[in-house]
Amino acid sequence: MKLDQIDTPAALIDIARMQKNIARMQGRMNTLGVAFRPHVKTTKCLDVVRAQIAAGARGITVSTLKEAEAFFAAGISDILYAVSMAPAKLPRALALRRQGCDLKLVVDNPTAAAAIAAFGDQHGETFEVWIEVDTDGHRSGITPEQDTLLDVGRILHENGVKVGGVMTHAGSSYELNTPEALAALAEQERAGCVRAAQRLREAGIACPAVSVGSTPTALAAAHLEGVTEVRAGVYVLFDLVMHNVGVCTIDDIALSVLATVIGHQPDKGWAILDAGWMAMSRDRGTSKQAHDFGYGKPCLLNGTPLTGYVVSGANQEHGILSPTEESAGDADDVTQQFPIGMKLRILPNHACATGAQFPEYHAVSPDGESVAWRRFQGW
Amino acid sequence: MKLDQIDTPAALIDIARMQKNIARMQGRMNTLGVAFRPHVKTTKCLDVVRAQIAAGARGITVSTLKEAEAFFAAGISDILYAVSMAPAKLPRALALRRQGCDLKLVVDNPTAAAAIAAFGDQHGETFEVWIEVDTDGHRSGITPEQDTLLDVGRILHENGVKVGGVMTHAGSSYELNTPEALAALAEQERAGCVRAAQRLREAGIACPAVSVGSTPTALAAAHLEGVTEVRAGVYVLFDLVMHNVGVCTIDDIALSVLATVIGHQPDKGWAILDAGWMAMSRDRGTSKQAHDFGYGKPCLLNGTPLTGYVVSGANQEHGILSPTEESAGDADDVTQQFPIGMKLRILPNHACATGAQFPEYHAVSPDGESVAWRRFQGW
Repeated sequence: MKLDQIDTPAALIDIARMQKNIARMQGRMNTLGVAFRPHVKTTKCLDVVRAQIAAGARGITVSTLKEAEAFFAAGISDILYAVSMAPAKLPRALALRRQGCDLKLVVDNPTAAAAIAAFGDQHGETFEVWIEVDTDGHRSGITPEQDTLLDVGRILHENGVKVGGVMTHAGSSYELNTPEALAALAEQERAGCVRAAQRLREAGIACPAVSVGSTPTALAAAHLEGVTEVRAGVYVLFDLVMHNVGVCTIDDIALSVLATVIGHQPDKGWAILDAGWMAMSRDRGTSKQAHDFGYGKPCLLNGTPLTGYVVSGANQEHGILSPTEESAGDADDVTQQFPIGMKLRILPNHACATGAQFPEYHAVSPDGESVAWRRFQGW
Repeated sequence: MKLDQIDTPAALIDIARMQKNIARMQGRMNTLGVAFRPHVKTTKCLDVVRAQIAAGARGITVSTLKEAEAFFAAGISDILYAVSMAPAKLPRALALRRQGCDLKLVVDNPTAAAAIAAFGDQHGETFEVWIEVDTDGHRSGITPEQDTLLDVGRILHENGVKVGGVMTHAGSSYELNTPEALAALAEQERAGCVRAAQRLREAGIACPAVSVGSTPTALAAAHLEGVTEVRAGVYVLFDLVMHNVGVCTIDDIALSVLATVIGHQPDKGWAILDAGWMAMSRDRGTSKQAHDFGYGKPCLLNGTPLTGYVVSGANQEHGILSPTEESAGDADDVTQQFPIGMKLRILPNHACATGAQFPEYHAVSPDGESVAWRRFQGW
């Protein structure tokens, strides 16, 4: 299907940009000498993940057991479920393991560790667990020097659970915007995770995997000594938040929302689009960054960015396209500039959030032809 | 299925609260002497809409053609598509009309009006169109005194399109929070829409329907003279934004997200939940209201609100439950208060946005039993 035949709103993936992003990340990981385990929560789309694996990715990271189930059903076995395990979800993990899925769980507390050990013992299953390490204080995990790290390691190790490794995610990298700060955080993430592995090993607990990553730190790390693998998700499509962080150009952003002009408020300089927050998502991740892109940055149908305009507001199925504050005085007649029926592509703040609003992507080739790539929803 | 057997995160509808909300709104409309046409964009769920119709609703309002197609397939024929028509979507509207759907379109500009007239002429179909009126300047529509109102009316009327009515949506009501301000806006919405109908009729254009509505103005209107019907959506579930607006109590909120405690950061007073922004949505609608509820207000599994705590942050699959600023000093040990595996119910900022994150609701009866109610996604 040609781009101008697609019903709006629609989520478009520019295949050439996506492949370039995949090659860039995989190339870096190859140079740094580590394995790469992409986080598939960004797209939840088998077509995208197959491209990541074809480029050299080894295994995947998931954020839900539904992702694990869906990608295992599609033939991918090496799966890290990177959210601290809720004991009530163990029957689903057991079912995957029994089907042959090499599913690795994550914990950061003694209670969940003991529950996994007891459940494994009860069902005759040797689970593999990675311990979550907190290297930047932004969310979950055990800091490398805490006693709890060894407590959790021992509970697992002494009760029939395989300690497969340690993992950390320096998610606070999203709040940075200079190469120096990103490189420093990448080193903090690396050193903290390696230190946690060292402590476990010194306590007699094998800890083969040392897994770090976020898109900004993965792209900023100077070296990854002691690390065995890196995880990253949003790099595959990039977005305006990542542009503000400084790890991609506008032209690297592979996801856009195709929208149609459906109205105007000429006195206000507004064109009304049929892409509101249901299409763009409510993510306003750029609102606290150096450049606030509202609900998205408009581009022409051919992808050329429109300087001086922004999607400044959104209701459920209405987006408001308006001049930026700097360009308000110079704006042309909005009804001429953006006639009814005109199609635009809106670059999103956050590719993970915007993609989740759609049941499918339209993957667009350089010749303008598109095919549907399904994605899934839910837990 | 019992509440404590449901996998988390999950979207729960409290059926008793929902039925109370439906009865309250329908009762008001009956008293005011107008028809009620619920906006089904809030739930996109046939089970909910059947309850609204059983209570007396006449027809439905939709925000997408996919909603129109899905609800028409389920036997509902009287459908208002309340977003200004994009000419490229006319083939889908035609297909619905030809199958017998009493689909009404909306326009607010001469270009779309002319496109509908031309398309109808070309295909031998008499479309019905309602003209969108702008009564509060918040988004789309033609103000009641503008010349464009009659221009659009004439383009339709003189070219074989039935002008079925006028409609307006005072969406700026979401920004108010006193009964007086809401009543004043409800009157402004009513008077503006009635005036637009009057002008069309004086120009010789029949305008049978006069349709107004938003949840706050529908609940605040003192009288609706000249109005034939009211539309509202979020009233059926309510949410924290509506609570801040002042049109529902916390105990009226019928939607919650079931979540499990999966970790702690005791030094920070945090419990980590398995409901992040993918479950709650990125909607931060209360952030600019009198009371900021973060990503949601926690309640015990039985529905009792937990004072002094808020979901203060969210990543994709992690929510951070923490003491509110006022109660930070008094908080108990978070690991004791919220043990690993504990289930909570989180009230959402915006029911329309949170529901959209889930493929189904779990509808909970007063006895604690639940059934799955499907909802759909996409356009």
